[in-house]
Formats: sequence, structure tokens, C-alpha cells
Amino acid sequence: MILDKQIIERHNNDLMGQHNKKFQLLAEEISGLNEILNKLQRFQIAIPSWALGTGGTRFGRFSGRGEPATLEQKLEDVGLLHALNGSSGAISLHIPWDIPRDVQHIKQLATDLSLSFDAVNSNTFQDQPQQKYSYKYGSLHHVDPRVRQQAVEHNIEVMQYGVELGSKALTIWLADGSSFPGQLNFRDSFLNTLSSMEEIYKHLPADWKLFVEYKAFEPFFYSTTIGDWGQSLLLANKLGPKAYTLVDLGHHLPNANIEQIVSLLMMEGKLGGFHFNDSKYADDDLTAGCIKPYQLFLIFNELIDGMDLRGIDHATGLGWMIDASHNMKDPLLDLLQSVEAIKIAYAQALLVDRVALRKAQHENDIITAQEILQGAFRTDVRPLLAEARYREGAAINPLQLFQKESLREELVRERGEHSVGTGL
Amino acid sequence: MILDKQIIERHNNDLMGQHNKKFQLLAEEISGLNEILNKLQRFQIAIPSWALGTGGTRFGRFSGRGEPATLEQKLEDVGLLHALNGSSGAISLHIPWDIPRDVQHIKQLATDLSLSFDAVNSNTFQDQPQQKYSYKYGSLHHVDPRVRQQAVEHNIEVMQYGVELGSKALTIWLADGSSFPGQLNFRDSFLNTLSSMEEIYKHLPADWKLFVEYKAFEPFFYSTTIGDWGQSLLLANKLGPKAYTLVDLGHHLPNANIEQIVSLLMMEGKLGGFHFNDSKYADDDLTAGCIKPYQLFLIFNELIDGMDLRGIDHATGLGWMIDASHNMKDPLLDLLQSVEAIKIAYAQALLVDRVALRKAQHENDIITAQEILQGAFRTDVRPLLAEARYREGAAINPLQLFQKESLREELVRERGEHSVGTGL
Amino acid sequence: MILDKQIIERHNNDLMGQHNKKFQLLAEEISGLNEILNKLQRFQIAIPSWALGTGGTRFGRFSGRGEPATLEQKLEDVGLLHALNGSSGAISLHIPWDIPRDVQHIKQLATDLSLSFDAVNSNTFQDQPQQKYSYKYGSLHHVDPRVRQQAVEHNIEVMQYGVELGSKALTIWLADGSSFPGQLNFRDSFLNTLSSMEEIYKHLPADWKLFVEYKAFEPFFYSTTIGDWGQSLLLANKLGPKAYTLVDLGHHLPNANIEQIVSLLMMEGKLGGFHFNDSKYADDDLTAGCIKPYQLFLIFNELIDGMDLRGIDHATGLGWMIDASHNMKDPLLDLLQSVEAIKIAYAQALLVDRVALRKAQHENDIITAQEILQGAFRTDVRPLLAEARYREGAAINPLQLFQKESLREELVRERGEHSVGTGL
Amino acid sequence: MILDKQIIERHNNDLMGQHNKKFQLLAEEISGLNEILNKLQRFQIAIPSWALGTGGTRFGRFSGRGEPATLEQKLEDVGLLHALNGSSGAISLHIPWDIPRDVQHIKQLATDLSLSFDAVNSNTFQDQPQQKYSYKYGSLHHVDPRVRQQAVEHNIEVMQYGVELGSKALTIWLADGSSFPGQLNFRDSFLNTLSSMEEIYKHLPADWKLFVEYKAFEPFFYSTTIGDWGQSLLLANKLGPKAYTLVDLGHHLPNANIEQIVSLLMMEGKLGGFHFNDSKYADDDLTAGCIKPYQLFLIFNELIDGMDLRGIDHATGLGWMIDASHNMKDPLLDLLQSVEAIKIAYAQALLVDRVALRKAQHENDIITAQEILQGAFRTDVRPLLAEARYREGAAINPLQLFQKESLREELVRERGEHSVGTGL
Repeated sequence: MILDKQIIERHNNDLMGQHNKKFQLLAEEISGLNEILNKLQRFQIAIPSWALGTGGTRFGRFSGRGEPATLEQKLEDVGLLHALNGSSGAISLHIPWDIPRDVQHIKQLATDLSLSFDAVNSNTFQDQPQQKYSYKYGSLHHVDPRVRQQAVEHNIEVMQYGVELGSKALTIWLADGSSFPGQLNFRDSFLNTLSSMEEIYKHLPADWKLFVEYKAFEPFFYSTTIGDWGQSLLLANKLGPKAYTLVDLGHHLPNANIEQIVSLLMMEGKLGGFHFNDSKYADDDLTAGCIKPYQLFLIFNELIDGMDLRGIDHATGLGWMIDASHNMKDPLLDLLQSVEAIKIAYAQALLVDRVALRKAQHENDIITAQEILQGAFRTDVRPLLAEARYREGAAINPLQLFQKESLREELVRERGEHSVGTGL
Repeated sequence: MILDKQIIERHNNDLMGQHNKKFQLLAEEISGLNEILNKLQRFQIAIPSWALGTGGTRFGRFSGRGEPATLEQKLEDVGLLHALNGSSGAISLHIPWDIPRDVQHIKQLATDLSLSFDAVNSNTFQDQPQQKYSYKYGSLHHVDPRVRQQAVEHNIEVMQYGVELGSKALTIWLADGSSFPGQLNFRDSFLNTLSSMEEIYKHLPADWKLFVEYKAFEPFFYSTTIGDWGQSLLLANKLGPKAYTLVDLGHHLPNANIEQIVSLLMMEGKLGGFHFNDSKYADDDLTAGCIKPYQLFLIFNELIDGMDLRGIDHATGLGWMIDASHNMKDPLLDLLQSVEAIKIAYAQALLVDRVALRKAQHENDIITAQEILQGAFRTDVRPLLAEARYREGAAINPLQLFQKESLREELVRERGEHSVGTGL
Repeated sequence: MILDKQIIERHNNDLMGQHNKKFQLLAEEISGLNEILNKLQRFQIAIPSWALGTGGTRFGRFSGRGEPATLEQKLEDVGLLHALNGSSGAISLHIPWDIPRDVQHIKQLATDLSLSFDAVNSNTFQDQPQQKYSYKYGSLHHVDPRVRQQAVEHNIEVMQYGVELGSKALTIWLADGSSFPGQLNFRDSFLNTLSSMEEIYKHLPADWKLFVEYKAFEPFFYSTTIGDWGQSLLLANKLGPKAYTLVDLGHHLPNANIEQIVSLLMMEGKLGGFHFNDSKYADDDLTAGCIKPYQLFLIFNELIDGMDLRGIDHATGLGWMIDASHNMKDPLLDLLQSVEAIKIAYAQALLVDRVALRKAQHENDIITAQEILQGAFRTDVRPLLAEARYREGAAINPLQLFQKESLREELVRERGEHSVGTGL
Repeated sequence: MILDKQIIERHNNDLMGQHNKKFQLLAEEISGLNEILNKLQRFQIAIPSWALGTGGTRFGRFSGRGEPATLEQKLEDVGLLHALNGSSGAISLHIPWDIPRDVQHIKQLATDLSLSFDAVNSNTFQDQPQQKYSYKYGSLHHVDPRVRQQAVEHNIEVMQYGVELGSKALTIWLADGSSFPGQLNFRDSFLNTLSSMEEIYKHLPADWKLFVEYKAFEPFFYSTTIGDWGQSLLLANKLGPKAYTLVDLGHHLPNANIEQIVSLLMMEGKLGGFHFNDSKYADDDLTAGCIKPYQLFLIFNELIDGMDLRGIDHATGLGWMIDASHNMKDPLLDLLQSVEAIKIAYAQALLVDRVALRKAQHENDIITAQEILQGAFRTDVRPLLAEARYREGAAINPLQLFQKESLREELVRERGEHSVGTGL
């Protein structure tokens, strides 16, 4: 399904009066308005191909309706999101769930939908039917060099698909770990992982980045071989200048100060990308900003501070991706809510008066520093987002449009009630 | 597969000399030795039917070998465990995964294997093929009375199976909850749950108990409708004298003092049963005692204190069950390790000098109180367990026997490499 | 120091133009505006007497300046806050730190400052110079009945002071607990606490409430005798209809769903009051709303839902108090920030369309439920608060006025640089 | 008070018969017994000077009796511990609490008591009376270079005291951090800290080590400038080969896998030392091994593995120190319990069959790996510790001797009831 532009125009016309009023009042108060709008317009958050279907837990999965069953349909879903919000202009593929059989066709379809291909993702946490060695006891960290070699080759293959599509990064989320004390030797696991990654790194195209993700626990419950940012950074430093740490918001121990981690990784020039989601307990993979929106704002506050210091372009310098699981809600609506929450946090962080903040910090004036951050966060920036969308030709209120136009029903009509995506 | 008694005898003969030496030295130091051995012999921990196959996580599942594919084979597996350790003389069935098609046959098989039927477990956290209404948004707490009614009827049906088999308790683990703020009204959810449970309670046979389990989170990630012991107790009190709280060790927030909860539930006469496992991060469902063995000991310390005060028989007064997930290890070996760890904790707690402990507590003599508990915990009680097993006709070292006799290989020969149990 | 009304008027005149513009736009969008403003005007948050000085940690304390050294000066500080924000019209006294030597004088001063006396607080977690028995090993839960009796009598004495001043509630925060396994018997500790509280309850005036606070840990590090809401509710139910649970936001295990606890306590008619603060790790006692403002909003969402259902007056039905520790920031400015954050959360929760929310919940429409809550939270309600303050004769921007008028400097002039309050 | 050797001899004679019996049985089973005993005899755990008095919490402090009021008395206390357990042959001084006024006298006293001087500790988390600039907003990370310089000079001064006494390491526990979002710039704080430490490092004597401690939170409650092992390692790497990370068991987020951290730090050659204590919730500073003894064992398992791989001497290669707070128990008895628990964990870890463990790991035989670790942990190694003490001329049962001989009463007679140590 490709959304008719006229539907968006009609929607925008309906809401324009109300929107303009709010936007004008806000506009008066904001200095550098156009620059902020420009940044909001350019900011794109990639959608992973696996997020378009209904996820589940180990206790079960309750299917959704009209889910994309093919890579083409997944592209169409992301295209639909992008048409609606103007901020989802990239898709992140997962191999082997989304192997492009006809690359030219897929590339053309992406171009038609104004989509680019974000980082490609390898999968060595599941066994595939044809696979020679099992990943039951891990992959890149495995005690058996043949398993490691198999996993290395899979990553190389993933990069090849990525090169064909125009991706510029490989994300390795390594689920390797252990569930019982004594199961593995931490040092050997780390060194095996390093050696496997060095092999992969050798094959990394010159203009690519390697993102090394970390996670505190799950699917293993005693240790994870790349368990925290310190371990990821250690690996990235040993690998070389094209290797970076990737931060997923749900991959930390309780109460972790993620914004500080982000700040220090940027200081070291080693923050590569971000997986957005939210959580209350563990890696809950909920809609971004639905539990701790202030934390999300504080993270963007650090991101902007760090990017501006190093002259990194907000839109293209780092990898931005949603990585949530949609167990309960319609994936497309859920993704619209995630993108909205992310851009709200970004917009609020753009409002922070950095000169005044720095001055307050230099004077240990905590009261003022708090007022500055809270002042930005308490500002209702939704009119800014709507305006940025409008200027991009997207919808003033994407979620409302999606519901009003019964877009999911249309997808069900096209795809059938019980279509299921690969990898779910 | 039924284990030949002679295999056990031969095994015991081989180990007897070494065993006796250790046991004798320990025996000299322990007062009330025979009473302790008697308690250890009588103590039985039920095995849930779903624990006999390989579990998984939301990220995947790596199959084991020779798993029981039928209810009969599951009974045989538990029978094998019980023959080996003399402490696994009960099985806990899960409906609809283990519906007994031929009750008399199943009962006879259980009798032959010296097994009884522990609490039956209902399942309203997954949809079954024939089911009219979905449990996607919950079951007993559902806003729609028709869904609640369907879930109530399922529980009644489960009890009927249980009555036929000779079970005396229904365990309700209610996965109902929400993953997003605003998704449900907490009060309505609680009251709907209460009203559904009242309906179930009406059908509870006169000599049965209803176990109300609680869990902090998962599979829902914002709230669980029976989220902690306080909520479970509230329900149990409103339901009546046959309703009890059931404690699963993995169902708490980080750092919870579970032993205090156990003590207070016993004080209120409302502790019904226990699900054993261990965890480091969340509901990891690892082998009992593999992460926090001292906590397990402290819990048994409270259990014994509370049971003795109320004159509750250790072996029969409460429901004891393992509830772990065996993702990585051979389920039967893992269960042997769990039972061993549980009985070690129980034996150590039996060694606590309660008169001296109470005296130290009354004098605020923390040093001595700590010495008493640590002294019991640091005692190597494995010879006591071995002796209790020997006296029961079971194996001095069940795990060693299982491995030496290649029992899993035998099961694979019988059942095939790739047999898979229901519900996995 | 009593603030000259003209200062506020001048301040308001300066800001009125800007304020009116923002307020008008918001006013157009809000239905039931006057009722909301009325509620905001009536809502008062008590200031505890110990919050007016600089707090510390076990590692040290860094003094502030011009702190109130006498009860009179503490009243003046709260009077100043109330003059500025119109929402701090009550003070909560702590005995023995704030024993009123001349009751009539103190009452008259409070009346002059438009202050009432909120719940009185007992202290049995520290030893006082003249005290016969030590609270080192606890107070109301103590194994020695003489210590319990002493602690009971202290609470009775505290109520007598409260009666003289016009308080209507006694708050018991019981620090009793243990730091080592085995130190105490959980059951005895609970029952001793119950029996001590029954004694106190007997002396509770007919129109008083008894607030039973709970806390997960600290100052004891293994168990707290009233450790969670379940234990507090158990006590409150056993004590009688005048006993209630009091919730302090910082007194929970990591990740606790406090809003659900609040909802269920209201369902049971047993929520008595609230201590506001915020925290990232433990009982950090930070400014309300400075870490998790969305959680604060969700709590108010439940509070309003529960109060409206039971017909409880928002302003007077429950006890509202700040309980933070001001280690780093000027206490008065910090309190202004806390009150602002609390009222923002309250105002946002008042904006929630409860009919629509309930409808969405009944349809399991999670997307819409989330939109409703996030929509309210994302609204910039600061103009509403400013308007409510203005209508009360308080300052449009209290914090700005405090700083611009150098009020702390004035207090330093009056009280000296190094004045220190009692109990710090 | 210097303990008469004859008291220990008499005590040992009384217990020898019973001891020998247990020891002999254990000795038969252990291969390499003498080497293990030799290691146990040589293993020394330093006692910090501040641990000899009663600690407190922010809510108060309940004094003990007969506490050491002078540095001489502190040395005597440690000497007493060492005479009793043969494992406390070093003291760790804290400046400015324990400035040695007469160095020769102090050194002679230490020699007489067979004590050496462990790492010296600086203090920039409290203000001292004569101090020019306040550490309210931090020290080495401070925005003001003058405060940083003052803190640097303090550390240099601490090293000078250490050189005079024969210490070989400086431990910096930097409490610097922030309690509110926005209070500081994480990057600047890190870089300021680095630059301050570089200054200190320049003054580090050639044969000294610099220990960089980290802590997740407290006394600051939003961020700590050296918050985790990753940040500490980053600093240590930037500083140079003499800088190392120091691990304190209580300084982590909930559920952290500390043994993995230890393993990786050793892999990097950057683990410098260890602060022992135990905790359930936060930095509870409880007796070592009183909450999570299995974790302590697992940590020693990694330490031994790492030290043996690199040829590091167990007794001298790393810094071992207790860092607990004795709020409730007699500090000397508490320290005896801590040392006992630490050496039990060490002895159990020495029993691990490393060849078999490595083989199991290489075969992914998790069952066996778990059996090996649990087998070692379940062994009652107390007779080994007693024998090691006996061979050192120390007491078979130090705690029993301390209590039977009423040593605390003797100290009270010498020092008076209410003596209080510096820094408490």
C-alpha cells in the first residue's frame, strides 16, 4: 500500500488552523526557530524490519493483523510510516530474516518510498535450518573455533548484502553469554570474541562502521560476554577506528545513568549509534518514552552537547534506530508513538540554552541548571514537530490520520488477516 | 524407561565405604540425627511436567535430546528422578499441555513409579487453537466478562482433571497485567480478578487448596495484576480459608527480602506453597541454589521456624515444587541439581540451634546469631543427604549414576533424538 | 522575615503581560478551567520542619547559610514559601527536634503566617540525651518490653503536642529493622510492633489519623520491620479504621510500580498520606519530580481517580507532605522547585479526560489510552499554576522573585551565616 | 592492650583434639594440602583505621564501647586482631583522620605488633576545619581549578605520610559527583578528574601504585564522576602503568556480575586491589560474606584464576582490604567475622580443580562445571583455616577466644566507656 498524497493534504488542511495558532505562540518564544525546525525535518530514525510484526515473550505470542509477510511489504510499511511522519526514512535489515532475493527490485522500491538502508544486523543467537554448527553455547565467543568461524562468515555475508543495498554499518548484537557460574571462562570468552571480531573487521568496507552492542543480561542469565559499555568500548578500541559502541536503552542494569555513559562515549569518539525503546524492569522493549521520558530528554541533551562539540551532524553522524517489540499494540501505531516521543525529546533538548547551562554549571548553581533543563522539558514542543512534518509534506498528526483512514484495515484487506512476518 | 533397582544397588555398594566415613564424622556432631534423616527422607519436591523438556527464551530455543513427548514419558522421567534421589515423588501437571486421556492408565503408571499428583496448573496466558476468546489482554482480570468466564471455566476444568488424578490443589499463576501506563485500571483489574477467583473458589473441592501466585513483571512490563505478596494475600484473605499465597523465588523486584515475606505469610497462616528456582536478574528460572544458596538457606530457616511453630508437617503441610526452565542443561540432570540444592538448604536449616538462636535474638547478640546461621550453612551436609537417599533405596550420588550409566543416551534410543514435549 | 505583600504585587505586575498571553491560549483549550484552577488554588503541600536546613549523608554535611535555628524561624521560612507559592500552607513538626515551648505564641505565629499544623512526627530512630533505653536495636519492635514502652510513651507525648497545636495526624516512620540475617525474628518483630502500635492507637484522639509509613531499607540493611506496603496495610487493618498507610516515594525496591500500590491502597480505603521526593537509586530524597516526573504524573493520575471515586476532597482528604533532604541546594529554593513539580503533575493529571480513558481501557485500546495520558503530560501547564498563584495573591514566578529579591541574603543578615537548625 | 601469647596457647590446647579430628578427615581428601595451607597462612587482609570504631548512617549513630581514640590504640586493635587470626597483618590509614604525629614511634609500634602499612587513603569528601576551599561541589573534578589544586595537594601530602610509614599505594575514593540532572557536565568532570590525577600521578613514588576506586552512587544521587569499572579503567589507562582500578564490592548497581568485572580487569593487567564487605541493597558496608557468600567465592575463583595465569603472588600481588561499617556489632568481632568469611571463600576457591573446570568449559559441560564449583563451595573448609592459624601461632577459634576472655571489657577498662575514634 502506498499512501495517496492527497489524503495527507486533506488531513493537513483540516488541522492547519488549530495548528497554526499553537505554533505561532511557541514560535515567538523560541530563538533560532528555523534552525531547530530544519534539524527536526532532517532527523530520521531507522525502523528495523523485525519491528513491523507482532512480537512475543517466552510465554507466548498473540498475533496481530495484516502484518507484512515479505521484505517488499516491510518496505511498504516503513514507507507508510515515513509518508506519515517524515522521520522514518530508513530501514534496518536483519539477516537471515530479510535476505533480499532481488536486490535491484528492492533498491528501486526503497527509492520509490524515499527510504535508505540503515545498518544491517547479523543473527547468531538462533540456529537456522541449514546451519552446520549450533549457537546454543554462543557464536563469536565460542570455545570451538569452527563455530566462531561460521559466525564470522555469517557476519561477512551480512555485510555483502548490506553493500549491495547501500548500507554503511554492521550492527553486532552478540547474545553470547552464560547462564551458570563456571559455564565459561570470562577471559577466554572475551578474547575469542575479540579475535572473531577482528576477522569481521578485516572485511569491513572502508566507509563502513562496525557497531558493537552490549547488554547486561538475557537471553543468558548469569553473564553476557559483551555485558556493558566498558566491555564494548574495550573491544571497539582494540578493533580500530571504524569500530564503535552502540547503546540500546534497555540493555542496562537497574538505575544506570545512561546519559553519563553516552557523554563519555562521545568524549572518547566512540559512540556509534542508538537503539531506542523504553523499559521499567528489564529489556522490556516498550515504546520509546512511554516510561521514562525525562531520561530520554536527558540523553538527547548529552547527545546534542557531544555532537555539537565534535561538529557531528545530528541527522547523519550517528546511527538512530528504534528497537522495540510490539507485543500488544499495532506495530505501525506503536512506531508512530515511538518516533513522536523521540523527536519530542530531541526538540526539547534543542531548546536548552547551552550557554546559560554551562554558566550555571561553572558557578555550581544547581537551582538554575535544573530550571534550564526542566524549563525545556516542560515546554510543549508538539507544535514544532507538527510544523516540521508539515514542511516535509508529512502529516500534522500522523497517528490520527492512520486511525481515521483505517489504514490497518486496508493492509488487512491487502495481506489477509493472518499474515506473519519472518523471524517472529 | 524404568531404572533397574540393581543398578542403584551396585552404585551404592561402590560408594558406601567413602560415604560411611564422612557420614560417621558428621553424625557424631549432630544431635537428633535420626529425626533429621527422617525429615530428609520424607521431604518431597514435586516436578512440573513442563520442566522435563528444554525451555527457551523469546530469542529462541535450542532443543535437547530424547525429551518426553507424551504424558506417560513425562511420568517416567519423574519416576526416574525419584528412583535416583528418593525426593521427587510427585508430579505437577499443566493443563492443557498434559491432559490425561486415559486417567486410570495414568494413575496406575504413577502408582507403579511411586508418584503422586501435586497441584494442577491452569494456563490462561496463551491462546489454544479451539479457544473462543483471546487472552491477549488478560484472562481473569479482563474487562470483558465473557473472557473472564471462559478463563474461570478453564480453571474449573483443570480442577476436574485434578480430582480424577488425586491432586489436592490448584495453582493459579495469573500472567494478567499491562505493558503501558493507562492500559488498564488497576482497581478494576484487581476487582475483576477477585470476582473471577471467587467463582473458581466456589468450585474448589472441600479438601483442596487454591494457590494464588504473584509476580512482579513479565510477560507484561508495566504492571502485573497480582504483582506482589501483598496483593496475593489481599486476594487470599478475601477469598477464604482455602486460598493461600504461593511464592516463586524469581517473581520479586531486585533485592527483595523473600525470607521476611515467607515468615509473615506463615504468621498469617497464608503461605500455601513454593516454587523453587534461582535468578540473578529477573525471573531467570535457573537451577535452585545456583546463584544465591545462602538466601535459599535463610528461606528454609524461616519455613522451618514457621512450620514448627504452627505444627505443620514439613513434608506435607506446604506445596513444594521446582519451577525452573532448562534452556541449556539436560533437564533431568538440572532437576537433580535443583533437588540437591534444595535439600542441602533444608538440611542446613534443620541444623540451626533454634533455642540458641532465639536466645541470641532476645539479647540482641547479633554476632552469635550470625555465627549460628553461618555455622549451619558452612556445614557440609552432603553426607546427610546421601544417607537419607541410601535409606530410601535411592542412589548415594544420583548425578554420577545418571552420567555413568548414560541414561540420557538410553532415553534417546527409546524416544528418538528430536522428540519434543507439549507446551515447549 | 515576613515578606512584604508589595514585593509580590510588583513582581506580578512585571510578569502579567507575558503570563496572560500564555494563560489565555491554554485556557481556550481546557474544559472546566475554573474548577481546575480552584483545585490548584486549594491544594496545599505541608513542609516538614526538618527540610528547612541543609541535610547530609553519612559521609558528611556541608552547611548552608542563614538556616532557621528556632521553631519560630522555621515557621517563618514556611510562611515565606507560602507567601510566594500559595501552596505551602502547613508545617509538619518533628518531635523532639521542634518541641513548642510556648504553644500559644507558636500558634499565633502560625495564624499570622496563614499556616496550619500538619501531621506530627515521632522519632525513635535516634537516642536523645535524657533517654533511659537506647533505640540501637529498634523501638516499637524491640525484644525488650521496656524499650517498646518508652517508644510508645514518646509517641503519646508527640500526639499531645500535636493536639495543642491543632494537628490531626501522627506519622510513624519506624526505622526498626535488622542489618544481618538472624539478628531478629521477623514474626516477633512484627507482632511486637503491632502491640506497640495498638497501645499508641488507644491514645489517638477521636478525630485523628495514624499514618504507618513503610520503607524497604536504610538505616537497616537486611530487613525493615515495616518494609513494604503489604506490611503497612496488614498493620493498618489490624489496628482499626483510623490507621492508614503512608507512602513515601523513595521507600521502595528498584522499579516498583508505585502508582499501582497507590491505586490499591485507595481501593481498600487505606491510603492516608504521601511523602514527596524523587530518587534514582535508593532513598535519595531529591527534589520532587527531578528524576522521574512522568511517574509522579502517573501517581497523581491514580490519586485523582481514587479520590474522585470515593468522594475524597483533593485538598484535605489525604496528607500531602514533602520529605526531601537538601544537601546541595538552598532548602527554600529546593522546596519551591519541589512544590512546583508536584503541582505540575497534579495539574496535568487533572487534564486527563477520564471518560475517554475509561472507554479506551474498556476497549483495550492501548494506543488511545497512552495518547490520553501522554497528551496531558506533554501539556505545558505552568501558566495554570501561575494563574492559580496569582489568584491566591502569591507570586507568578516564586523562584525568580526569591532570587531577584535576594531573600536568602536577607535571612543570612537576620540569622547569621552559620545558624544551624535542630536535628541536623 | 597486647594479648598474652599464653592465652592463645591455652585456647589452642583446649580445642586441639576436636580440631585435629576434623582436619585429618579433610586433609585426606585434599590434594596439595600443604600448599593450600601455606597460601592461607600468607594471605593477609588489611584493616582500615576507620573500621575500628562504630559507624553510623545519616539517621544517627549508636556508639560502641572502649573504642580506640588514638592512632596508637588503632594499631593495638589491629595488632590484637592479627594475634588472634594471623591474617590481619596490615593497617590502612586514612588522612587526615590518622595523621601520625610521631612517625618513628608509630613505626616501632607497628613492628612490635607485626603490622605493616597498607595503602594510604585520602579524603576529599569532607571539609576540614582549616581548609581554604570547600568540597561541597566536589574536589578533583571541581570546575574551579583552585579547588582541584587543593585536593591534589592533599593527595600529595597523604603520599608523603605513606612514604614515611612504608606504604606502597595511594587509594583514591573520589566521592565527586552530582545529585541533579544538569548540575555538571559529565565530560568536563571526567577531564578535570583526569588532569588532577595526572598531577597526583607525577608525584607517585616509583615503587607505588595508584588505586582508582569507583562507585555507582552515594554520597551523590544522580551521577558519580568515577561511577563504574569502565570509567575507572579509562582513567587508569590514561594515567599510566602504575595506575590501577580498585574494586569495592558494594559500589555497583543491583545485580552486577562483579566476578566478570574482576576477570576482565585482570585480563587487562589493571586490577589493583579489593575492598571487601557485603550488601543487600546499596553500599550497605556489612560484614564480608554475610549476605552473598557464594558471590564472594565466585570472585575469588576469578581472582585465583587470573593471578595464577599472570604469576601474581596471592598474598602480595594485589591490595586486599576490608571496608565495612560497623554500626551494630562490636567492630573487632565484626572484623573477625569478615576475615573468616573472606578466607573461607579463598580456601574454597583454592579447592577448585582448575584442570577439570577448564575441560568442562571446553566441552560446554555446564553440569560438570557447576558441580565443580558447588563441590568446592559446599566443602566445609573451616578446619583448614583453623590449622593455618594454628601454624601461624594464632587462635584456632579467634571469635570464641575474644568472647571467652572478655577482651572488649578489658579495652573498656583501659580506654573508658565512651572513647570515640577520629573520623566517626
